[in-house]
Amino acid sequence: MSTVQIDAFTAPQRHHDQTLTAQITQMIEHKITGLGLRPGSRLPSIRAMAEHLKVSRFTMVEAYEQLTSKGWLQARPGAGYFVNARPALKDADVLSLHPPHAGQSATGGNSNPPALDVSWLLESTLRDMGGRFNPGTSALMPKAWLDAELVASAIRSVGRSSCASLMEYGNAQGYLPLRISIAEQLQLMGIAAHAEHNMLITSGVTHATDLALRTLAAPGDTVLVEDPAWYLVFARLAAAGVRVIGIPRTHTGPDLDMLEHLVRQHRPKLFFINSAVHNPTGYSLSPRSAHTILKLAQEYDFHILEDDTYGELHPGGAIRIAALDGLERVLLTGGFSKPLAAGLRIGYIAASAALTKRLTDLKLLSGLTTPELPERVLQHIMASGQYSRHIQRLRQAVDHARHQAMAFFKPLGLAPDPAPHAGLFLWLNCQQDSEQLARKAASQGLILAPGRLFSPAQVPDTHIRLSVSITENPEALQLLKSLLSQA
Amino acid sequence: MSTVQIDAFTAPQRHHDQTLTAQITQMIEHKITGLGLRPGSRLPSIRAMAEHLKVSRFTMVEAYEQLTSKGWLQARPGAGYFVNARPALKDADVLSLHPPHAGQSATGGNSNPPALDVSWLLESTLRDMGGRFNPGTSALMPKAWLDAELVASAIRSVGRSSCASLMEYGNAQGYLPLRISIAEQLQLMGIAAHAEHNMLITSGVTHATDLALRTLAAPGDTVLVEDPAWYLVFARLAAAGVRVIGIPRTHTGPDLDMLEHLVRQHRPKLFFINSAVHNPTGYSLSPRSAHTILKLAQEYDFHILEDDTYGELHPGGAIRIAALDGLERVLLTGGFSKPLAAGLRIGYIAASAALTKRLTDLKLLSGLTTPELPERVLQHIMASGQYSRHIQRLRQAVDHARHQAMAFFKPLGLAPDPAPHAGLFLWLNCQQDSEQLARKAASQGLILAPGRLFSPAQVPDTHIRLSVSITENPEALQLLKSLLSQA
Repeated sequence: MSTVQIDAFTAPQRHHDQTLTAQITQMIEHKITGLGLRPGSRLPSIRAMAEHLKVSRFTMVEAYEQLTSKGWLQARPGAGYFVNARPALKDADVLSLHPPHAGQSATGGNSNPPALDVSWLLESTLRDMGGRFNPGTSALMPKAWLDAELVASAIRSVGRSSCASLMEYGNAQGYLPLRISIAEQLQLMGIAAHAEHNMLITSGVTHATDLALRTLAAPGDTVLVEDPAWYLVFARLAAAGVRVIGIPRTHTGPDLDMLEHLVRQHRPKLFFINSAVHNPTGYSLSPRSAHTILKLAQEYDFHILEDDTYGELHPGGAIRIAALDGLERVLLTGGFSKPLAAGLRIGYIAASAALTKRLTDLKLLSGLTTPELPERVLQHIMASGQYSRHIQRLRQAVDHARHQAMAFFKPLGLAPDPAPHAGLFLWLNCQQDSEQLARKAASQGLILAPGRLFSPAQVPDTHIRLSVSITENPEALQLLKSLLSQA
Repeated sequence: MSTVQIDAFTAPQRHHDQTLTAQITQMIEHKITGLGLRPGSRLPSIRAMAEHLKVSRFTMVEAYEQLTSKGWLQARPGAGYFVNARPALKDADVLSLHPPHAGQSATGGNSNPPALDVSWLLESTLRDMGGRFNPGTSALMPKAWLDAELVASAIRSVGRSSCASLMEYGNAQGYLPLRISIAEQLQLMGIAAHAEHNMLITSGVTHATDLALRTLAAPGDTVLVEDPAWYLVFARLAAAGVRVIGIPRTHTGPDLDMLEHLVRQHRPKLFFINSAVHNPTGYSLSPRSAHTILKLAQEYDFHILEDDTYGELHPGGAIRIAALDGLERVLLTGGFSKPLAAGLRIGYIAASAALTKRLTDLKLLSGLTTPELPERVLQHIMASGQYSRHIQRLRQAVDHARHQAMAFFKPLGLAPDPAPHAGLFLWLNCQQDSEQLARKAASQGLILAPGRLFSPAQVPDTHIRLSVSITENPEALQLLKSLLSQA
């Protein structure tokens, strides 16, 4: 681990309304976030810093101690002060999530430009944010690529069958025929999931994540995430009071050296990963990465929550750690919100028999069963073969749009390299502060998702996550191009 | 608070494979549960106990200290040792909840008589327990009293309308037209619930309870429940790591003196109560009780979670604390599992605007939205006026069966006195150990719910909870009569 360059730190002002210590701690905090200093980086020694900042050693000791007690630094006796694994998001970040107000949900009318934070992006998942174009924020497919009539006709079919079972709570693990259908899909991917012993239906991947987190991690435990990663997970982890550490994601998977180093140092309980069609980069795990991650999990005894939310957008052949593991310490979660209909609220989690039982117990205690009606609707669509035909059509639409978007951004020098093989998103390096870009864009009605939101440390970033559905809207694409060229 | 009679305690054996201390602590634990000693009862002094049990004072000190550290006793310097508020159920109780296995769920075939514990009764909520008759365990209406075709035709109607909105996540607080319908119902009961500011749709009352508990109580906090009360709440509270204290329920509501005493002593965060049509007794709160409880909540600053699960079975005029309070510190929760269809999984929680926002945030983080499809089905039934007609018919069926059941048990000297005005259950004092009775009954195919399950301290009891739907089945009624006469 390298020592942070001392020149990065700026001296406090003598005549200032804050104490020297307060100025220094604040400055260092800003550097940790602003420079994106990695956990484990060593800070300059007390003596060196005191000389450099022209303050007493006593002041420097005080500043480092305050940063340590606030969780920014870790003191290692004899070795110095090191940047700590990032403290979880503050409660305030989580509690500022605003439920959409009914009056706005229909019209989306919202005259104030929203703050670009996790809560805002979470809201944007749920409703029209009031921009003319929302290609960055929506994680859903455009409606034109989905098939509302497919769902409607399945609803009518279920309504014509016997609804007597809807008078009861249904099965704790979810509607059995649906579990069988999903297990068959997983078996095709080499995952030995048994419908009775290994499958639990949940209210989407978010519910599955909540159950897994409550079952496998306690407050104060360390949880690894990818960096960048899906932002809602950060808010969920913060609310759980766990320590969150980000592992940089490359196009072959997480940085394996960094992973091993941090696993050894922090002994995590859980690692959240998108193996196939990673959100936001679109890359899938290499087989070697999958093997190495599983070996580390076995050696250091942590669980892996493998989130397959966008996995069905892969043309096939993407590896899942759950397949290598045989569902011993890997929990695979996926759902039907993206490929079929978010409003059905159906996800699943596949895990060992013992874990499935614990997860089912928690599901029962925290909400009894999930509703059988949407589960029967989905099962009707899967059993009829319509689901796999729909997925093929959807994948074609997504792939076509992604190729178009790549062709558009390549001449601008902004296309991701290597090109992702699958998925709805491009992780576009704008080569400028993406939050400023997003603010500028929002003022012109184009809602973008800046990279900071996808960073577990909330570090400013030059990327945006862009849905390739923007190609459906040439006007939005041209507006983005002109904004990008103003850098 | 009286001192527990010293004769209740029995001396340890000298030549035993356990130490004297271990024998004494175990004996006292058994007495606390077996005698149902109330929190706050004083144990005999160390000197008196040492003399009575013929052991050294040192051994007694050790025994009392161990019981204190295990949470059974509380030491008050200068005053002695007192029975503590009951420790939460052990983890094992919670984790022994078995998900129903698919192979059994259809047929209900299960040759081993089940253990009569919370997990068993929770399972019984979800599936046929394999008895010939299940009048004690099912909390649902018999299917003959429900209307599956009413639900099926509403499903077909929704399937004929536009399903485009099902492609999206829907509203964080739940489908707005449904919130408006439910808020109108609450307004008729004097509860000023605004559909936008005070209403959150949940996946049943269990989900609402989970959200409220996670929002309002932390591990170690004290939560009051009624004694007896709905058993699933105990398992939920145990999993949350809170201290649970039971308040005896009379026919006018909780024992108000005991409530005031325990509130003052333990400063609870939350009180769970069934104001109208209490489960299992069927009694409803007197206006004076409602007023006194709210005054205590205001003075000692705790929240009230008012569970209205069976409230619609009341002919009208039952008081809700939420109405007196104006939704300041009372959260009212209810649902449609009992009166309409458990499989739709729809409940709600009405609370202050600030609490509604926090509950909505947690709902989002732990599972995003609830599915709009069942919500639209329910809204279709409510808006057409069919729902209130259905409730009237249902109430008539329930009332008729309850009068029949009362007439059956009165000559046997077992009918509750006073007679409950409403509800599906009779809390029948069998004048014998009800767990033994339940075991005997189970061996003959009649599944009963013994009183211990409804006791927060899991104390043996002479009551059973009986669904009045047993009157639909004369054979089961005769079997129960013959079992009762064998006392």
